[in-house]
Amino acid sequence: MRRTLFDADHDAFRDSVRAFLLKEAVPHSADWESAGLVDRSFWSAAAAHGMVAFSAPEEFGGSGVRDFRFNAVINEEVVRTGTVGDGFSLTNDIVAPYYLDIATPEQQARWLPGIVAGDTVVAIAMSEPGTGSDLRAIATTAAREPGGWRLTGSKTFITSGIQADLVIVAARIPDSDGGGFGLFVVAAGQEGFTKGRKLDKIGRRAQDTAELSFVDVFVPDSDVLGEPGRGLHYMMGNLAQERLSMAVVAVASAEHAVRTAIDYASERTAFGTPIGSFQANRFRFAELSTKTAIARTYVDRCIEATNAGELTAAEAAGAKFWTTELEFEALDACLQIHGGYGYMEEFDVARRWRDARVQRIYGGTNEIMREIVGRSLGL
Amino acid sequence: MRRTLFDADHDAFRDSVRAFLLKEAVPHSADWESAGLVDRSFWSAAAAHGMVAFSAPEEFGGSGVRDFRFNAVINEEVVRTGTVGDGFSLTNDIVAPYYLDIATPEQQARWLPGIVAGDTVVAIAMSEPGTGSDLRAIATTAAREPGGWRLTGSKTFITSGIQADLVIVAARIPDSDGGGFGLFVVAAGQEGFTKGRKLDKIGRRAQDTAELSFVDVFVPDSDVLGEPGRGLHYMMGNLAQERLSMAVVAVASAEHAVRTAIDYASERTAFGTPIGSFQANRFRFAELSTKTAIARTYVDRCIEATNAGELTAAEAAGAKFWTTELEFEALDACLQIHGGYGYMEEFDVARRWRDARVQRIYGGTNEIMREIVGRSLGL
Amino acid sequence: MRRTLFDADHDAFRDSVRAFLLKEAVPHSADWESAGLVDRSFWSAAAAHGMVAFSAPEEFGGSGVRDFRFNAVINEEVVRTGTVGDGFSLTNDIVAPYYLDIATPEQQARWLPGIVAGDTVVAIAMSEPGTGSDLRAIATTAAREPGGWRLTGSKTFITSGIQADLVIVAARIPDSDGGGFGLFVVAAGQEGFTKGRKLDKIGRRAQDTAELSFVDVFVPDSDVLGEPGRGLHYMMGNLAQERLSMAVVAVASAEHAVRTAIDYASERTAFGTPIGSFQANRFRFAELSTKTAIARTYVDRCIEATNAGELTAAEAAGAKFWTTELEFEALDACLQIHGGYGYMEEFDVARRWRDARVQRIYGGTNEIMREIVGRSLGL
Amino acid sequence: MRRTLFDADHDAFRDSVRAFLLKEAVPHSADWESAGLVDRSFWSAAAAHGMVAFSAPEEFGGSGVRDFRFNAVINEEVVRTGTVGDGFSLTNDIVAPYYLDIATPEQQARWLPGIVAGDTVVAIAMSEPGTGSDLRAIATTAAREPGGWRLTGSKTFITSGIQADLVIVAARIPDSDGGGFGLFVVAAGQEGFTKGRKLDKIGRRAQDTAELSFVDVFVPDSDVLGEPGRGLHYMMGNLAQERLSMAVVAVASAEHAVRTAIDYASERTAFGTPIGSFQANRFRFAELSTKTAIARTYVDRCIEATNAGELTAAEAAGAKFWTTELEFEALDACLQIHGGYGYMEEFDVARRWRDARVQRIYGGTNEIMREIVGRSLGL
Repeated sequence: MRRTLFDADHDAFRDSVRAFLLKEAVPHSADWESAGLVDRSFWSAAAAHGMVAFSAPEEFGGSGVRDFRFNAVINEEVVRTGTVGDGFSLTNDIVAPYYLDIATPEQQARWLPGIVAGDTVVAIAMSEPGTGSDLRAIATTAAREPGGWRLTGSKTFITSGIQADLVIVAARIPDSDGGGFGLFVVAAGQEGFTKGRKLDKIGRRAQDTAELSFVDVFVPDSDVLGEPGRGLHYMMGNLAQERLSMAVVAVASAEHAVRTAIDYASERTAFGTPIGSFQANRFRFAELSTKTAIARTYVDRCIEATNAGELTAAEAAGAKFWTTELEFEALDACLQIHGGYGYMEEFDVARRWRDARVQRIYGGTNEIMREIVGRSLGL
Repeated sequence: MRRTLFDADHDAFRDSVRAFLLKEAVPHSADWESAGLVDRSFWSAAAAHGMVAFSAPEEFGGSGVRDFRFNAVINEEVVRTGTVGDGFSLTNDIVAPYYLDIATPEQQARWLPGIVAGDTVVAIAMSEPGTGSDLRAIATTAAREPGGWRLTGSKTFITSGIQADLVIVAARIPDSDGGGFGLFVVAAGQEGFTKGRKLDKIGRRAQDTAELSFVDVFVPDSDVLGEPGRGLHYMMGNLAQERLSMAVVAVASAEHAVRTAIDYASERTAFGTPIGSFQANRFRFAELSTKTAIARTYVDRCIEATNAGELTAAEAAGAKFWTTELEFEALDACLQIHGGYGYMEEFDVARRWRDARVQRIYGGTNEIMREIVGRSLGL
Repeated sequence: MRRTLFDADHDAFRDSVRAFLLKEAVPHSADWESAGLVDRSFWSAAAAHGMVAFSAPEEFGGSGVRDFRFNAVINEEVVRTGTVGDGFSLTNDIVAPYYLDIATPEQQARWLPGIVAGDTVVAIAMSEPGTGSDLRAIATTAAREPGGWRLTGSKTFITSGIQADLVIVAARIPDSDGGGFGLFVVAAGQEGFTKGRKLDKIGRRAQDTAELSFVDVFVPDSDVLGEPGRGLHYMMGNLAQERLSMAVVAVASAEHAVRTAIDYASERTAFGTPIGSFQANRFRFAELSTKTAIARTYVDRCIEATNAGELTAAEAAGAKFWTTELEFEALDACLQIHGGYGYMEEFDVARRWRDARVQRIYGGTNEIMREIVGRSLGL
Repeated sequence: MRRTLFDADHDAFRDSVRAFLLKEAVPHSADWESAGLVDRSFWSAAAAHGMVAFSAPEEFGGSGVRDFRFNAVINEEVVRTGTVGDGFSLTNDIVAPYYLDIATPEQQARWLPGIVAGDTVVAIAMSEPGTGSDLRAIATTAAREPGGWRLTGSKTFITSGIQADLVIVAARIPDSDGGGFGLFVVAAGQEGFTKGRKLDKIGRRAQDTAELSFVDVFVPDSDVLGEPGRGLHYMMGNLAQERLSMAVVAVASAEHAVRTAIDYASERTAFGTPIGSFQANRFRFAELSTKTAIARTYVDRCIEATNAGELTAAEAAGAKFWTTELEFEALDACLQIHGGYGYMEEFDVARRWRDARVQRIYGGTNEIMREIVGRSLGL
């Protein structure tokens, strides 16, 4: 089905992004996987290429364009050319909206230029060792002090936590009625803020993920995002786009897996014939190809709805769980098509398979997604 | 997700169709189920309401508008208000294109007025006892004679076969090179044409389905549709729309099942609480609701593509198998939600469940659909 | 896998049962389906053949053998030769234990001879319009009176309710502490006991199923089974065997479906080759055949455990839900193999398909089964 | 369901094996994972403990007992205590039968003592870069020479290939009618035999897996196993036991995953309650627990059948594919229960998840298994 989502501008941007990634990312992917980190220099280059927090106002170095189709283009090309981690989706789709929508003009002037230039690596710290997908259970606290707040608590599974220069930390404000939450910006190097272990994950190894610790970290009022007490509201507001971002990645990942596995199955022979011609395999690909096309159509429609401000939390949650389960189903089937080779780290499909598994977990587990959709049905 | 497919014209048509069905079909549905037939008088009334072969040129009583969205509106409303059989989809989506696209002006002038007026009930006879979904295995033959052809063979599973006044019969032409096929129009009452048993189906009981027998039936050249020998080409050309029609029905059926089962589950209690509030049920509905929304988006996109002449055979085949499997999954889950009541004929969900089962079979089994998609992938 | 469960006695009994059913049931099945009832004369003949409540003591006409393998043999042969309803499993597996284990010697002397002779048709009434699978929600009440009880309430989905001469009715005893339950035996014709509609089911049409109504029905103390107040305990105690009975039917049904569909698929051709030789079908049968063999082994082991008094409620619940879902999966796949013919009432697979659907519902829905297993895990 | 398979001897052996593994394997597992190899010293210790090729005749150091229940005990305990690779199943279940059943007394005397003592590490080389699961496509050739054969070819995915001292190599004998195969024993260090790369696998990292290369390796007649030309027959004969071995591992692995995840879910809380108490999770565990119990019963029955010489190739193939798919389904669900932690290498479930994936591939892919079962049905 022909995609109707994009204009010529997006197509041109896609070409540019793809060329950049082929030149600047693909040759280094293996090294980054080994190192467990993407080079910061890559990040600066990508920023220079207009790929980092690009929707920021022009005065801060951005394009001034809020159009999620550009975000989608980057995510899709990152998936197609091979993983360089979650940096783009984290920065552009998840973190940037906080700085663009909640930060004061003074904060924007202070932080955005560095972010857009790729000099300031960002992160957001919500998850804690004891909370999982339950934001209301956040135990990190922000105690009021003259002129600011004292943060104490532990965060985990923080994407880019090791490299981050600026971290938005979600913390409970015990004093507020009913226990509200606030968003506090903490810079690397602040007293009491230590970065813990780089977590050793099954996949997504080029992406650093970390535990962060905050012990009596002082955050001046000027580094608080939005109104203290409304943090949950802000986070909820951004979740739809965050989950759509994951769905965009999921569909691109499934498409890539199916396309490349069909190629493989057309060449690889067994019992004297291409394995793709075995009916069981042909049917498998027919199903995956159909479901992927259906997912693609739905996610494209969700992108339109996001741009129109119409995407609901439940629709985003549904898109997230359904596409990420399709993604893993596709990767798992495509790994199987490769036989023993599919189990070897050197094969692209093997790495993508273990990389894909986390999509059903992070950004809210797929069980939480079902809960959200279910409740939206009045159940 | 808001549907973007329809204009105000379609909305108005929908209101009109729904009102008509509520008044003229719903009160008689149970009787038609018992009789195994929809009254011909209903058909005439529907035709008067502009719902039968309405895309025919105005000179023959139609609206002159070829826009599959109107077909979709009728199918959706038929599903929503309760089944009146497959007559509309058969006539408007499957049979009409043969008369509109292949028939000569003389044939159109002869046949279309009666069809559009609802006086002439139509059918198309492809399946045979030995062929299943394999059109190339058609064994009914058309032997050349001076001025016409002699048809001999048996057809089965023919929708509206009992009531049909005019049947398009697909037959093999043994003389043509490589054994081509032709499409021959046979009228009820012609010598040698007998209608066999009304088949006793698991479901869709208001819809008559029949075996038809042709013994040396003479078809004059003037009653042949298109070029003899090109029948397979014509049939193939119409299959995409035929399958999309089934997908439209499937999605509307799944939507109806999920919506009404959610209502039921919100009211019915067990263990002191509405059964819809049990997490396993809530998750089940979350999945079905999400998948149905995704299917809806895809089928709407396919309708656009059909109107643009872009829908491929493989896309239609994919839409058909995926949506009809979703339809049955939804009906089966919704029946289960009703517990013992779901197994009782008097419950709407029970009848819809047994009605839905055939969708995975007719119009080409879902296995054939996978084969078609698989081959389109080069496998 | 060779079955190791049976001795020569069981094999001989199987031959006898099969011969009886082929002669006395098979020729009448279609009539019974139309009538919605099995002839009472058949029931007497089966009793004479030692197939009804045969585990009763010899003094009451039974064999005095409590060995569930004989029950299993009957169920399996009923399935294989074509359905004659649920009468055997109801009487032998579900109802008989109440009369054998809880009834007093006086009650046994009064009731068992008629039951074993096939003169007295039995039923048990647990489900109510508002309860579903939740026994604790039973609303039928038994009010204490001098010398007995007054029963008032409605029951539904009662197997053999129309033909039943003797019905065990589960009712709430409001006076007892915490609201216990009692089991009350009511005979057809007692004042205040009326049989309602014969329910029109999707399938199992040779088996009558009914609504029963009790209005101030007087039950003398002599017709109370066991201790009033311990009814729930008795019912719970019998549920494991009841559910195992359904699992036995399920596996036999799946086996029959797979075996006959393989035969069909070996003969029916499409595209010039037997449809069973298409890899997608071969794989489908490989899965069903394997799962059926696995289910068979497990159910045989459960039968051993039942005879040893070791089968737990959770094991029986697990066997029930897993095998009945396998049964329906098998029937659904085998119907599909038959293409359009699978949708025709005259085909065995079509009838078995709609018959099988209820197995996932009655005897406690499969959702309740999961709940039971889940709780047994401490969750 | 109580297992009825084992005698006191097996229980005692299990205790001994478990104690040994807890002491000698568990403390070193992490190191072996890092090294990609199990220490040879462990292997000697295990041999001294009677766990290596223990079914060899007593004269060669074995127990002289051919009872697959002992093999099963070792496999189960290896799984329970944490992976030490595939060495035991490879040696005891797969390779030992060749030396016990086909080797001449002279060969046995020469090779078995070292194998049983753990001094000689064994392997078997069937798979090739181009063959996958298709044994008939083996391209390694054995050319006849005076007094022996010349082997040339490449093998891959060879378990223990790096450490192996003695490798059984399957090779095509071009001269024989129809192209038979032979089994040739090659020792490490023989001229022309080189061990290639240690393959970097997604999982099972403590187990070395290698490519092996044979260039004009001379194998004297005295090192040929059985009759040249009957190699395929020998391999086929051993496949049932090999696949049963994998099923034993699969069920033990699924059991372990479910048991430990239930424990985790009983302790870990979210939204203020143990996550295991959420109905969706409880149902999930109910399903997995039931299926695992069913699988356990079937595999135990297969072990009995193997000991009785009754297990068919199709039954073993069915057991292999069904249990290994259950295993992965269980691991995948249990990983999900752990949320973000499930994606961390340091968590047991994460490692077991990636370890389990290969079971659906090696020993013949699960697609090949379905093919085998399907053909046994005459399809």
